[in-house]
Amino acid sequence: MQTLSQQQYIDGIKDGNTIVLSRAITLLESTRSDHQALAREVLEELLPLTGRSKRLGVTGVPGVGKSTFIEAIGELLIEDDKKLAVLAVDPSSQLSKGSILGDKTRMEKLSAHPSVFIRPTAAGDALGGVGRRTRETILLCEAAGFDYVLVETVGVGQSEIAVHSMVDCFLLLLLSGAGDELQGIKRGIMEMADIIAINKAFINSELKPQAKQAMQELRNALHYFPEKDNSWLTKVCATDSLEGEGVQKMVETLDSFFNHQRLKGYDLERRKKQDLFWFHETIRSRLLSQFYQNDEKQKEITQMVAAIEAGRISSFKAADALFEKE
Amino acid sequence: MQTLSQQQYIDGIKDGNTIVLSRAITLLESTRSDHQALAREVLEELLPLTGRSKRLGVTGVPGVGKSTFIEAIGELLIEDDKKLAVLAVDPSSQLSKGSILGDKTRMEKLSAHPSVFIRPTAAGDALGGVGRRTRETILLCEAAGFDYVLVETVGVGQSEIAVHSMVDCFLLLLLSGAGDELQGIKRGIMEMADIIAINKAFINSELKPQAKQAMQELRNALHYFPEKDNSWLTKVCATDSLEGEGVQKMVETLDSFFNHQRLKGYDLERRKKQDLFWFHETIRSRLLSQFYQNDEKQKEITQMVAAIEAGRISSFKAADALFEKE
Repeated sequence: MQTLSQQQYIDGIKDGNTIVLSRAITLLESTRSDHQALAREVLEELLPLTGRSKRLGVTGVPGVGKSTFIEAIGELLIEDDKKLAVLAVDPSSQLSKGSILGDKTRMEKLSAHPSVFIRPTAAGDALGGVGRRTRETILLCEAAGFDYVLVETVGVGQSEIAVHSMVDCFLLLLLSGAGDELQGIKRGIMEMADIIAINKAFINSELKPQAKQAMQELRNALHYFPEKDNSWLTKVCATDSLEGEGVQKMVETLDSFFNHQRLKGYDLERRKKQDLFWFHETIRSRLLSQFYQNDEKQKEITQMVAAIEAGRISSFKAADALFEKE
Repeated sequence: MQTLSQQQYIDGIKDGNTIVLSRAITLLESTRSDHQALAREVLEELLPLTGRSKRLGVTGVPGVGKSTFIEAIGELLIEDDKKLAVLAVDPSSQLSKGSILGDKTRMEKLSAHPSVFIRPTAAGDALGGVGRRTRETILLCEAAGFDYVLVETVGVGQSEIAVHSMVDCFLLLLLSGAGDELQGIKRGIMEMADIIAINKAFINSELKPQAKQAMQELRNALHYFPEKDNSWLTKVCATDSLEGEGVQKMVETLDSFFNHQRLKGYDLERRKKQDLFWFHETIRSRLLSQFYQNDEKQKEITQMVAAIEAGRISSFKAADALFEKE
């Protein structure tokens, strides 16, 4: 990979040049440490330009219609002259070394628009695959002048916790099914949501009965959740990205959420908490990788595991022994 | 605290002397590292005698009737000539430096019986307060010859994850209320349960209608959960510890669970996984405390946090900087 100079990356991103932005993200995702170091120097220089976008996380199980949903609200945002970056995070790409969400054609209209930047982001190694790189990518997009940064993730693991810890607003998409709305989704994810949308909720512009029922059930269930720090009561909406129903209302709900946060000062508070979360998470992750990636240590660990399995030593004593040898 | 000699602890515990056992546990819980070291030497010597008991975790929100429940099934077990150790874990004791669960009078009949050992265990610092010490205490009880070790915990935090990782069977107590059985309890905890008991489910030996409904709802909900490794389908029972209803059936359900596990070899497999879990968890916890308890490091961390909050440095760069100085 041919790299640009540090100044070329900085200037290009400042100018909102998406080709340079894209190359900087690739640099971040490189396995070569000199590439990563260069990308991070660029990021530190651009830090004063970050923090100005609205960061929105969108999650939901496969098939719920995340891409169409993002396309639908994205269109409204760009009509309003907003610039929009969409980061599609695929937690499985850690295994496949590529991103199955990278299919830009899924967002046909958005991907053709000059105000939109769509980018699959490869999963890193922190918190279920979504971590540092995605967060750094958000910051680069902000420096490039995007008004909204949407982070799309599949609702199937720890990746939501990571995404929740890097966005201002966390949006959960659900489908209304046969009365089992509450069973299908992990409780923890529902608790994190600021807004829940029942997607594919309309047929011929009419709200489906099961969507209505699902909304009611959700609102009931939400009463049992602990109150959020920001005193925002999770909103439940109905949308249909293909029919276009409820999309305008969704954008209004988003606005009212962002207003609520800004008026109460919760927007800055949340970001401050997130910064500290990632500070400590990075420390944790570095400590572990330092420890486990040591060849000497790995041999000892293998021996200890064998001793534990044979019942010759307790787990605790075995762990202690690894430290005593230091 | 006056300590015994290592050999005195070992001999006493081998003899099933509960006074010596109790003193060894106190040693484990001491904040003095020489006490802990002595206790751990004792434990390593006793290791060949551990692993023979049935380890049972009992969890549920305050008020669900855990103590009465344990008393009720405990009575059946001792009638069957079993020896029983009950460890009451209070996750809040990390704050209060004492255990509110330490009130032995709550289990009047059991606490007076010579085959029963009841002990509140102070919470440690791993996994929400329940970790190493509780697990080590289980092992000491096993070496002392108890057939059953029951670990009681309040279902309000991370402590269930810890307890789940140290027992053979995880039992969740619920109350039947006004149709909101599924809302009140964290989903993750329900997924961990091997057996769920609706407690206080009878009135004048009749199953209450809402208990019946709760059982049905639970069984429906359980269908949506992923299948367990051990191919055991979580059982739902109704009990009433005060009336004594359902308690015999509960003990039979326990037996059938333990039989299932033994026949399929899942009992050993589960314990092996738990051993490895605690091995890595102990490593993690030691790495973190080593790092954060360093005075020099703490100063740097404070400076970095200030720089992050002022927006002068990214969370990641700040964390990296702590490692570069090493």
